[in-house]
Amino acid sequence: MNKPKIAIILGSDSDLPTMEGCFKVLRDFAVPFELKVLSAHRSPALVHAFAKSAAKRGIKAIIAGAGGAAHLAGVVASLTRLPVIGVPMETKSLRGIDSLLSTVQMPSGVPVATMAIGKAGAKNAAIFALQILGLTEPKTAKKLEAFKKRLSAEVAAKNKKFK
Amino acid sequence: MNKPKIAIILGSDSDLPTMEGCFKVLRDFAVPFELKVLSAHRSPALVHAFAKSAAKRGIKAIIAGAGGAAHLAGVVASLTRLPVIGVPMETKSLRGIDSLLSTVQMPSGVPVATMAIGKAGAKNAAIFALQILGLTEPKTAKKLEAFKKRLSAEVAAKNKKFK
Amino acid sequence: MNKPKIAIILGSDSDLPTMEGCFKVLRDFAVPFELKVLSAHRSPALVHAFAKSAAKRGIKAIIAGAGGAAHLAGVVASLTRLPVIGVPMETKSLRGIDSLLSTVQMPSGVPVATMAIGKAGAKNAAIFALQILGLTEPKTAKKLEAFKKRLSAEVAAKNKKFK
Amino acid sequence: MNKPKIAIILGSDSDLPTMEGCFKVLRDFAVPFELKVLSAHRSPALVHAFAKSAAKRGIKAIIAGAGGAAHLAGVVASLTRLPVIGVPMETKSLRGIDSLLSTVQMPSGVPVATMAIGKAGAKNAAIFALQILGLTEPKTAKKLEAFKKRLSAEVAAKNKKFK
Amino acid sequence: MNKPKIAIILGSDSDLPTMEGCFKVLRDFAVPFELKVLSAHRSPALVHAFAKSAAKRGIKAIIAGAGGAAHLAGVVASLTRLPVIGVPMETKSLRGIDSLLSTVQMPSGVPVATMAIGKAGAKNAAIFALQILGLTEPKTAKKLEAFKKRLSAEVAAKNKKFK
Amino acid sequence: MNKPKIAIILGSDSDLPTMEGCFKVLRDFAVPFELKVLSAHRSPALVHAFAKSAAKRGIKAIIAGAGGAAHLAGVVASLTRLPVIGVPMETKSLRGIDSLLSTVQMPSGVPVATMAIGKAGAKNAAIFALQILGLTEPKTAKKLEAFKKRLSAEVAAKNKKFK
Amino acid sequence: MNKPKIAIILGSDSDLPTMEGCFKVLRDFAVPFELKVLSAHRSPALVHAFAKSAAKRGIKAIIAGAGGAAHLAGVVASLTRLPVIGVPMETKSLRGIDSLLSTVQMPSGVPVATMAIGKAGAKNAAIFALQILGLTEPKTAKKLEAFKKRLSAEVAAKNKKFK
Amino acid sequence: MNKPKIAIILGSDSDLPTMEGCFKVLRDFAVPFELKVLSAHRSPALVHAFAKSAAKRGIKAIIAGAGGAAHLAGVVASLTRLPVIGVPMETKSLRGIDSLLSTVQMPSGVPVATMAIGKAGAKNAAIFALQILGLTEPKTAKKLEAFKKRLSAEVAAKNKKFK
Repeated sequence: MNKPKIAIILGSDSDLPTMEGCFKVLRDFAVPFELKVLSAHRSPALVHAFAKSAAKRGIKAIIAGAGGAAHLAGVVASLTRLPVIGVPMETKSLRGIDSLLSTVQMPSGVPVATMAIGKAGAKNAAIFALQILGLTEPKTAKKLEAFKKRLSAEVAAKNKKFK
Repeated sequence: MNKPKIAIILGSDSDLPTMEGCFKVLRDFAVPFELKVLSAHRSPALVHAFAKSAAKRGIKAIIAGAGGAAHLAGVVASLTRLPVIGVPMETKSLRGIDSLLSTVQMPSGVPVATMAIGKAGAKNAAIFALQILGLTEPKTAKKLEAFKKRLSAEVAAKNKKFK
Repeated sequence: MNKPKIAIILGSDSDLPTMEGCFKVLRDFAVPFELKVLSAHRSPALVHAFAKSAAKRGIKAIIAGAGGAAHLAGVVASLTRLPVIGVPMETKSLRGIDSLLSTVQMPSGVPVATMAIGKAGAKNAAIFALQILGLTEPKTAKKLEAFKKRLSAEVAAKNKKFK
Repeated sequence: MNKPKIAIILGSDSDLPTMEGCFKVLRDFAVPFELKVLSAHRSPALVHAFAKSAAKRGIKAIIAGAGGAAHLAGVVASLTRLPVIGVPMETKSLRGIDSLLSTVQMPSGVPVATMAIGKAGAKNAAIFALQILGLTEPKTAKKLEAFKKRLSAEVAAKNKKFK
Repeated sequence: MNKPKIAIILGSDSDLPTMEGCFKVLRDFAVPFELKVLSAHRSPALVHAFAKSAAKRGIKAIIAGAGGAAHLAGVVASLTRLPVIGVPMETKSLRGIDSLLSTVQMPSGVPVATMAIGKAGAKNAAIFALQILGLTEPKTAKKLEAFKKRLSAEVAAKNKKFK
Repeated sequence: MNKPKIAIILGSDSDLPTMEGCFKVLRDFAVPFELKVLSAHRSPALVHAFAKSAAKRGIKAIIAGAGGAAHLAGVVASLTRLPVIGVPMETKSLRGIDSLLSTVQMPSGVPVATMAIGKAGAKNAAIFALQILGLTEPKTAKKLEAFKKRLSAEVAAKNKKFK
Repeated sequence: MNKPKIAIILGSDSDLPTMEGCFKVLRDFAVPFELKVLSAHRSPALVHAFAKSAAKRGIKAIIAGAGGAAHLAGVVASLTRLPVIGVPMETKSLRGIDSLLSTVQMPSGVPVATMAIGKAGAKNAAIFALQILGLTEPKTAKKLEAFKKRLSAEVAAKNKKFK
Repeated sequence: MNKPKIAIILGSDSDLPTMEGCFKVLRDFAVPFELKVLSAHRSPALVHAFAKSAAKRGIKAIIAGAGGAAHLAGVVASLTRLPVIGVPMETKSLRGIDSLLSTVQMPSGVPVATMAIGKAGAKNAAIFALQILGLTEPKTAKKLEAFKKRLSAEVAAKNKKFK
């Protein structure tokens, strides 16, 4: 019934505030998801167990957020055939350029679908996961089309307001 | 019968050699695809027509390769609810960091799933598209699992060879 | 009478404070302008309608401010023969280098006249638009020459003060 | 009769090959231009004399190409009310990121309209200058619209060819 | 007898030429080593097996060379208490800055001792491993001191030659 | 008895807060260490004396933290055969990328084992030094294995908490 | 008598706080200096007049601080045979990397002696100017040697304090 | 008689071709100089001996060229009160940005006058050294003024030629 379709994994619980927009979008679309803190470097066995079981448990896409030498998305992608979506976290020193390059520059054979650094990327990870679901769920496809119209309507509304 | 499931669009025909690995993977998996040169900046109307019709024509994912101020993936993503996968092209001066940032740093609401710069990203775009198809096509899912095993077997073989 | 000569479009209303200097310069020169929030990604149809009608409505130059994967100026430039002036917004993570490269690295055929990142660029966009108008409006040309003298006089004055 | 409307100045004659596309566009549009090698650092007096006389001699826009600590466009912009268009040259060590930042990051009050690094920027500088002329020359405006159509037609043609 | 003390693992056999200096130093010091191609992303199970057994097999330090989103050193470091030395490979597009940041920016708890990008780093990885062995092997310590003297003598000799 | 095994040297006492995690780890493992402020540039003679005597005094590894044109680790490494671990400090303007490159890009022959920028790197420097000691001290090896288990257990615990 | 030997020029009076250390060093060494705000872009004629007269007025070295597309030092260096020392100011968006590259990447023939970004560079500009004066003023040479000893003594003192 | 006034030191003899322009300028000005290969990392004692004796031997300025973690100029500057001019060498992977930051980002108290990366910087280092000598040698001052005129005349000549 409430079986999660999307899994969200984070390298650290300090990434939770950045991911708020991701959770909100999935809740707005009423798509059940699971959320785990799983460090590629501090808890490799937990990551391994998670990645190996995800497809079997009915997960359709995995969203992985991590910062710095951000290996989480890549490690998971090496262990599953599910689409893995990477969210590079902003970092204190290098502002997330380290997270971005560590997530996106994957070698031939093991893709990670990388989103923008930080909050925009977190929210877009959810939308992208919904776009995947929308390919086979007409209800989600319709909601996405409505969502796109709403984005445009909000822009139009702003113009009225500030005239 | 041979209706394309994946659309590949390129900002310039000079991007074709970079994309060879992408075409090859899709052919190896026997997934029909269409290929177009479509510049976001030089032919906006063609891009618009393409993006607006893609979902209706049965396309499941769009792979967009572009370089420099690489707007192609983002422009298409603004016009469709289909998953859009961006491949940042290597550029002569800035080596593709411009293409990468122009592709990945999308604002809230309109995701582009960004791959690595250049050839690795081109090949991975195809694999990622297949991972999406594999969610609902058991045959593709199986092939992906075989592909992953082959990747690992190739690595193991290399070790034998160079001992 | 008060028909706008310059159009200013912004990817988000959060860019308004950065653009204050731009508005002020145009008001100081008594040049009528229009201002719109128009997201290339969230409201592509609105951007399209705007760009296609701008020349006909008597607009002489378009100032487009956007951040991140900043496609707004490039998208508009692809749709009009009017000069388009891009202002890259400062961004939280990458400080605007993403906005700059996404705005300036346009392909052959579709130029965007790019200004500095943030407030200096916003103000300079207005001055540059005035320099274009000044080519055929002697009054504006004279005001620009007075403006340049004032810049120099202000510098000279600072030296007196802090001696 | 053949009085130049556009001035092109280059920091070094080694920049000439990069600028070929710029010359070609202006010749294709039959717009007379003048071309000078003028180093901001090696020949400051020549730059000064040039910049001070440009408006009086009927020049409508100045295209300045320079590399490294590229001051040429900025120095000229400080001395004239004409629109100055900067083309950052590719450099051997830093690939032109130095030229780009030295050209674009101008302070409040003195804009330089910066183009892409290298050849694309060189060609676009010419097109941008034509877009300025097109505001008051209907013939040039028409040619620009034809040019835009040709860009799109060329893209369409490529699709036919490689099918 | 010839039991390897150092393990060298590479993300790809295309990294072998870069590592030549590493092999040579270890051979010059007569320190037995093992060499494996092991991709963190393409052969995660092989990496896991390797890392888990290394300490038991008597390995004292692991040198891991990888490029792009270079996770190899980090993944191994997450699985063993042995010192892991990372060599970031030069990459085609981003010249190795991606490899460097992916290797060095490890989170609290799991260090990777990162060397310079490319050949200098490869050679230094061997020297650093020897410095670790030298702490408890007086013979290696002496050889290292001789090596340092030779470095200085070579510099001195160059001065004689080119006078 | 309490003879220091690890030496920590810092380019400036303003680096002390960044190094807190380093001190804490060593204290938690009950490994005696010495701490000095030693500027490569302001006190070269003190650095020289320190580096030349370190091995004789029983030091097993040197941790050097410095920022900007961070030469401290490299200078020490040029004077001793002991393993030198570099911690690049975050800097105000360039956020530590200057410190990182100055520390890691060492020439052939003189390695510095570079850690992440700032606090994570400081803590990891201590852990890496312990990994070296653990090669010959079974007690330290055991503690490191317990430490790794604790890292993983802490991650697992976080998941329980936030469910 | 009190004739200035060093001239300090700044692109903006907002640079004054950054330069405090520069003024202090010169006052500590009792070297008379002059200070001017002179924008290369806003007051080119003032800069020209300054640079052309500096050598004749007995100035021995010119310190120029500027930010962004920092042309001030380069423009002055193009107009005088005096040594010009550039101080790149920290900038809001790009943290001073723009100022640094615009100052240091001067073309063959016109050097600018570039210091570190911001406050350290400002103070060092004064010390470097004193090192030039010290070549022919034995008193200044002696003071510089005392200054170097004091730097070292301060470091030594810090070690006592924090033991 | 032929006592060297300028010392040039290089981190490696592979830097010699880059420095050709430096040698040529000094020979053209008939200024005697000495040239040494001296690695900060491989031959620290030689560097120390050189730096400590330079002032006494009548050297007026030291030009230090080095690449990567380029410590040579900084190490020498820490040991002498003479002006030290740094030339950052182009590097294979990071194109010299590592050399530049390692040379220029010196801490408060120990300046290095940094030139452009590579050949332009090498030549300018010589010119800058001559500008220092020119402060007290009227003959050199005159030659420098002639040199500046020649630079400008060469630019003017190029314009004649290519008309």
